[in-house]
Amino acid sequence: MGTLSDRSLVEIRRDLHAHPEVGWTEYRTTALVAEALADLGFTLHLGEAALDPADRMGVPPDGTLASARARAEDEGAPADYVDRLDETTGLVATRTFGDAGTTVGLRVDMDALEREEDADPDHPPYRDGYHSRHPNEMHACGHDGHVAIGIGVARALTATSTFDGTLKLFVQPAEEGCRGGLAMSRSGHLDDVDHLLAVHLGLGYGTGTVVAGFDRPYANAKLDVTFEGEAAHAGVAPDAGRNALQAAATAITNLYSLPRDADGLTRVNVGQVHAPNAQNVIAEEASLRLEVRGEGERINERLLDRARTTVAAAASMHDVGHREALYGKATTFEADAPMIDAVATTAEAVDEVTRVVRRARIPASEDAAYLVRRVQERGGTATYVGIGSEIPAGHHESRFDIDEDALAIGVDVLVGAIRQLSAAG
Amino acid sequence: MGTLSDRSLVEIRRDLHAHPEVGWTEYRTTALVAEALADLGFTLHLGEAALDPADRMGVPPDGTLASARARAEDEGAPADYVDRLDETTGLVATRTFGDAGTTVGLRVDMDALEREEDADPDHPPYRDGYHSRHPNEMHACGHDGHVAIGIGVARALTATSTFDGTLKLFVQPAEEGCRGGLAMSRSGHLDDVDHLLAVHLGLGYGTGTVVAGFDRPYANAKLDVTFEGEAAHAGVAPDAGRNALQAAATAITNLYSLPRDADGLTRVNVGQVHAPNAQNVIAEEASLRLEVRGEGERINERLLDRARTTVAAAASMHDVGHREALYGKATTFEADAPMIDAVATTAEAVDEVTRVVRRARIPASEDAAYLVRRVQERGGTATYVGIGSEIPAGHHESRFDIDEDALAIGVDVLVGAIRQLSAAG
Amino acid sequence: MGTLSDRSLVEIRRDLHAHPEVGWTEYRTTALVAEALADLGFTLHLGEAALDPADRMGVPPDGTLASARARAEDEGAPADYVDRLDETTGLVATRTFGDAGTTVGLRVDMDALEREEDADPDHPPYRDGYHSRHPNEMHACGHDGHVAIGIGVARALTATSTFDGTLKLFVQPAEEGCRGGLAMSRSGHLDDVDHLLAVHLGLGYGTGTVVAGFDRPYANAKLDVTFEGEAAHAGVAPDAGRNALQAAATAITNLYSLPRDADGLTRVNVGQVHAPNAQNVIAEEASLRLEVRGEGERINERLLDRARTTVAAAASMHDVGHREALYGKATTFEADAPMIDAVATTAEAVDEVTRVVRRARIPASEDAAYLVRRVQERGGTATYVGIGSEIPAGHHESRFDIDEDALAIGVDVLVGAIRQLSAAG
Amino acid sequence: MGTLSDRSLVEIRRDLHAHPEVGWTEYRTTALVAEALADLGFTLHLGEAALDPADRMGVPPDGTLASARARAEDEGAPADYVDRLDETTGLVATRTFGDAGTTVGLRVDMDALEREEDADPDHPPYRDGYHSRHPNEMHACGHDGHVAIGIGVARALTATSTFDGTLKLFVQPAEEGCRGGLAMSRSGHLDDVDHLLAVHLGLGYGTGTVVAGFDRPYANAKLDVTFEGEAAHAGVAPDAGRNALQAAATAITNLYSLPRDADGLTRVNVGQVHAPNAQNVIAEEASLRLEVRGEGERINERLLDRARTTVAAAASMHDVGHREALYGKATTFEADAPMIDAVATTAEAVDEVTRVVRRARIPASEDAAYLVRRVQERGGTATYVGIGSEIPAGHHESRFDIDEDALAIGVDVLVGAIRQLSAAG
Repeated sequence: MGTLSDRSLVEIRRDLHAHPEVGWTEYRTTALVAEALADLGFTLHLGEAALDPADRMGVPPDGTLASARARAEDEGAPADYVDRLDETTGLVATRTFGDAGTTVGLRVDMDALEREEDADPDHPPYRDGYHSRHPNEMHACGHDGHVAIGIGVARALTATSTFDGTLKLFVQPAEEGCRGGLAMSRSGHLDDVDHLLAVHLGLGYGTGTVVAGFDRPYANAKLDVTFEGEAAHAGVAPDAGRNALQAAATAITNLYSLPRDADGLTRVNVGQVHAPNAQNVIAEEASLRLEVRGEGERINERLLDRARTTVAAAASMHDVGHREALYGKATTFEADAPMIDAVATTAEAVDEVTRVVRRARIPASEDAAYLVRRVQERGGTATYVGIGSEIPAGHHESRFDIDEDALAIGVDVLVGAIRQLSAAG
Repeated sequence: MGTLSDRSLVEIRRDLHAHPEVGWTEYRTTALVAEALADLGFTLHLGEAALDPADRMGVPPDGTLASARARAEDEGAPADYVDRLDETTGLVATRTFGDAGTTVGLRVDMDALEREEDADPDHPPYRDGYHSRHPNEMHACGHDGHVAIGIGVARALTATSTFDGTLKLFVQPAEEGCRGGLAMSRSGHLDDVDHLLAVHLGLGYGTGTVVAGFDRPYANAKLDVTFEGEAAHAGVAPDAGRNALQAAATAITNLYSLPRDADGLTRVNVGQVHAPNAQNVIAEEASLRLEVRGEGERINERLLDRARTTVAAAASMHDVGHREALYGKATTFEADAPMIDAVATTAEAVDEVTRVVRRARIPASEDAAYLVRRVQERGGTATYVGIGSEIPAGHHESRFDIDEDALAIGVDVLVGAIRQLSAAG
Repeated sequence: MGTLSDRSLVEIRRDLHAHPEVGWTEYRTTALVAEALADLGFTLHLGEAALDPADRMGVPPDGTLASARARAEDEGAPADYVDRLDETTGLVATRTFGDAGTTVGLRVDMDALEREEDADPDHPPYRDGYHSRHPNEMHACGHDGHVAIGIGVARALTATSTFDGTLKLFVQPAEEGCRGGLAMSRSGHLDDVDHLLAVHLGLGYGTGTVVAGFDRPYANAKLDVTFEGEAAHAGVAPDAGRNALQAAATAITNLYSLPRDADGLTRVNVGQVHAPNAQNVIAEEASLRLEVRGEGERINERLLDRARTTVAAAASMHDVGHREALYGKATTFEADAPMIDAVATTAEAVDEVTRVVRRARIPASEDAAYLVRRVQERGGTATYVGIGSEIPAGHHESRFDIDEDALAIGVDVLVGAIRQLSAAG
Repeated sequence: MGTLSDRSLVEIRRDLHAHPEVGWTEYRTTALVAEALADLGFTLHLGEAALDPADRMGVPPDGTLASARARAEDEGAPADYVDRLDETTGLVATRTFGDAGTTVGLRVDMDALEREEDADPDHPPYRDGYHSRHPNEMHACGHDGHVAIGIGVARALTATSTFDGTLKLFVQPAEEGCRGGLAMSRSGHLDDVDHLLAVHLGLGYGTGTVVAGFDRPYANAKLDVTFEGEAAHAGVAPDAGRNALQAAATAITNLYSLPRDADGLTRVNVGQVHAPNAQNVIAEEASLRLEVRGEGERINERLLDRARTTVAAAASMHDVGHREALYGKATTFEADAPMIDAVATTAEAVDEVTRVVRRARIPASEDAAYLVRRVQERGGTATYVGIGSEIPAGHHESRFDIDEDALAIGVDVLVGAIRQLSAAG
């Protein structure tokens, strides 16, 4: 059996679909993609060479990482590449074609979600045998397809002589939760990129539609908070405890009441809370996971600031301590018009493309925004391309699946755009 | 017309009842009592000589004080005494009888309540014409009677030769809200008192009953808080305001949830809130009046501390400032057994006394506690004497009235006790 | 002295400015305008004939109305017209010109604000002597100017022979708080209006600018709530009370946390709270004034529903009752394109107009929306016209003033538009 | 190997200590005790014959019960007795001695706690090898000793001829959390008991001390609540969700603020909360475990009522549903003076007893209260006996242990009391 580079787009996607890896555990995925791109003549920047581990957010405990790494090796990840992922997953792969100076980046994300895949025999991955082998992990957002497209693009450009320039492939870990984009944006690898493309399947558009300029996602921040009090018998010594749960409840109520904004939409949510004591013991610990979002970075930063103030004041009010850590964070961006033009023109020339949308709002948050902003800050241009795909269930749902016909469309559109961008210089 | 010292107990009480003065505005009362006691040969310590104005709590605005002073003069307060109340109301009056060394103190309070007296023609003060002349002020807690008893005791001891010792009469302002006791306790006048008696009418006991040792009132603290934010149009600029009302609401909810206590009862209440803006303006100010009480001083101090922490944290949470001031405060005490013995023995010898209760809990807070504690700390002993009185309505209610027969009983019991204490040395 | 119909626009405006009347107390204003329009040959529908008193919201207490009425007569309001305002203020005045069938409506509002006018001698109303004679009432939103424009338009059309059609002048009370628009919209007088114009001065645009289609104001609702509990001594009988203030605090915190909306902006505010008890008495009453706003009627209705649910649940949680009443309410609307065209075309032809904005968002709520929607529902068209005016301070501020040059511009633009609309049929 | 009836008190206790079973899983314990008492001639009422399963509170899921039952058989529980525990654990065993009519009941509880035993080699159970074999289960409240005492009493009375009467042994399951007492009290077996004794080791008294009348525990109720809302994407569709966590937070804050009580202490606590969603998903479920306690049954019932009202209102406020179930409940009682006399007299005659306390407050809640109240309601008398024991760590802590010398003292005191009660008739 050869490497992924020898297989069809559908085979690649199905192999990854069957072996989903959640954020920061993408050992098998990274290693297989690295091997394939090495085959195609790319220079590899693996793990720590692709991003600074200290910039990562929302990293699982060491034990989880070690298990995932062991599993990757059990499931056929090439050991020499896994070994190079010492501190972190992630890959930047580079190849220069011809002698032209234009550098084009393509970002694909590769992580799966914590979700059990639906086992209905009519669900295509089950019907055709490529369903997830990993309990409570699933490619329910199409990142398996993004990786296949990335390899497809690399292969197509390698196979032909019509591209003069440098292609940089950014294979980003931990997009879910917006945990990996910031780290990759700071790696330095974006700094000489003239034009950056990012790609996503689905997102509300059917097969045949291409969105040339998906942009303006919500800026977003996710915060993990643990209130730390002191246990006491609630009946015998109510004044002896320090009640972490009262702090949490006060924080929750007040977080939802953070002031709205003159300049646009605001969002606040607390999704998760745990306080594990018996009824008669004052809670010495209560942890919560919250997020804020804002239409624009100023709003998001204001909300994050106020959320932190709220949490700190709730702790102080109830005489408890607290710890907090960013679980994830994303900014927002606008796609550049010339990039939209390049993608739109190319897409119109692709047979299977039946409709081109020039610009649309990303209906969520997306940490490609950090990569886009980095390129733009350094004088380059960028866009985020939507490749339409029929989907039988919404993103993140257990019956999610992509239309595999969209993979080739994605490759064709991106290859065309890259060629045009390099020709335009 | 002579001074109050020439009048009967009932006449004194009725004069005061008709001219009630709320805390720190007792200009007429102080001046008339001073005049009467001067007549009886007492040395006077008036106003600032009776207590340090800086120690007062819950003092009304200057304009209120000035109006009350003017009214006192209009209503016959002797001007020379009013003039000596430059900074504050209040009086300590002293007279030494014979040559013995024992110093006995008697504390009576003199302030009225902010309450409109019931105008029903069957309400005795209306029926007999001695109802309050002052809108929204009323002697609804019997302090008019306490003052009458105090003058009665002074007169009785002056009239006979059976007391060797020094009598100190503490005529305390602003007992309601526990605003004046602390100041008087720090005046120095308590420091050489061997035995202190305080007195209250009613409090749940009918005429003929005497409680020799009323004690263990709740310790108490009252705090005025104003949150100071910034107004903004709630529709147009919700993020521009700083919302004092959200701070107040969070404070209120969390104040009621202050931890209960292993050692006894806790109480918290917010009685008053004002935030005056229109619906569409973010509140730049919200003021509230709260109190805490505890069974014992430790509990009360803990609650006050936590209340302050809660208020400060609520302000910080909503990015607003706040001011706070103690409106009143009281501690607790236990009556001394020898004092209870003295009062009980005496009371049993008074004809009109049909029942003697040795010790009972004061069902409220009482700032005589500071005077009692001061005497006890200096090695003296003290008790708080309840003189039963039928009452047609509860204390602080608009139909409250005392049974004037109780006045003479009060004088007899206290005079007897003072004689016995001085004899015992 | 003649009626207002004989005076200049500036004189009319200044007379009204000096005698501001807040919502539902516009006795003098209504009577003077009625008299002027009668002079000009208009048929009057006064008071109850202009709107159903039962549909009014946020009506002040009877005593306030009676005082305002008496003051109006003192200040020169023609008594015969005041007499016809038996139940309510408000006026619809109609005149048919020529024999054409087109009916054009013009809505002006006439109420002032509860605000003290700035007494700085440099503030033009003070400098030139037409400042408010009424303490705590002020025309700080330009409605004095709107009325002047309305009379100006009526006079101009009466004076010339170039208008064939019927003009209906809607002189609306109580726009502030959005209390009068709903009632007027249900009067029937709108039902045969083919084209409706409403007008506002200022709102962010300087003199010379005209906004042909001001629209999409926030839908809005204002609710007055009183929680009704039971008093008790907070120290002695904490379980005997039913605490209206705890209900209010819980309601406030939870109102601000009402869910945001997928479809647009949401707003919530509680501006006013009163709970008047002493610290040691459990609050038997707490009143609050709140508002919600939404970008679109669905959002606003959802917020109002949820606000009511929140208030009811807070009452139930704390075992207290509650009363509630709508203080005001407004919907939203879109201006019709043909109306925008008519106004824009006309405005461009007016010399003093230097800039025409076709469509802009009203940065607030506006109860003309009900009138607009009524006309649109019956098949007519409508727009809301902004007449730019320099202003030295923001709307609703104590130094607010209008540029009186804008009055003539307003008349010219509206007269032109009305003629064009009637010509177009 | 014989039954428990052949072993020493210490051996019995250690066997049980090594095999702790939490509430409603006491299959091994019940079966072994049943076997031992059958050996001693007692008539058995096992499982459903001892209490109505429908009256049980806080029963674990079926799977937990099935596992516990299987484990019991693995660990040597006599299968014929386990088979008779079809629906529930629990045992009432009866034997009549002589021909007298007096019926004396003795209640011992037998369940362990969910807690990991400390594995320190100095902790006596580890040192001597009788530590818990069950992860996260431990006899940390001395119930292992209570059962040993129960068997010891049965054996002692069987062995001698000095008791005329009927002994009923109530071996109660699920005392922790107050889940089993109510069911047993309703079984009918208490209805003919003339005198009831219950027993507890430790509770603040050292070896040699006996408390003849432990009483007045807090009345208590534990409620499990689950709020049931609807998930939605918090960024994309905030108005589509129904937020169970906002309901929970509002409930928590307001539960702690339930009104205090004129008649005595109140307690409220929420110990446990779980809401498991990701940050960006509105919580469709939030569960919490709360308890209330009151000094006296009226207070407790009021608090429970108000807690339920609070929970229901919080659900209604946030438009979510909720389920609730009592997890446990206990009332309070006073020990009867004649019973205190009997125990005190007997205890003074026991050599190892160095101090007898007549009456003391149980510093917690205790569901023996239901059994006591049942006997008292039927005309019998009861007391709850404390057998002092040194303990190296507090009740419910991981290093808790009893002084095994206390076991024999317990047997002697109780046997003596039972004899005296039967003699007295």
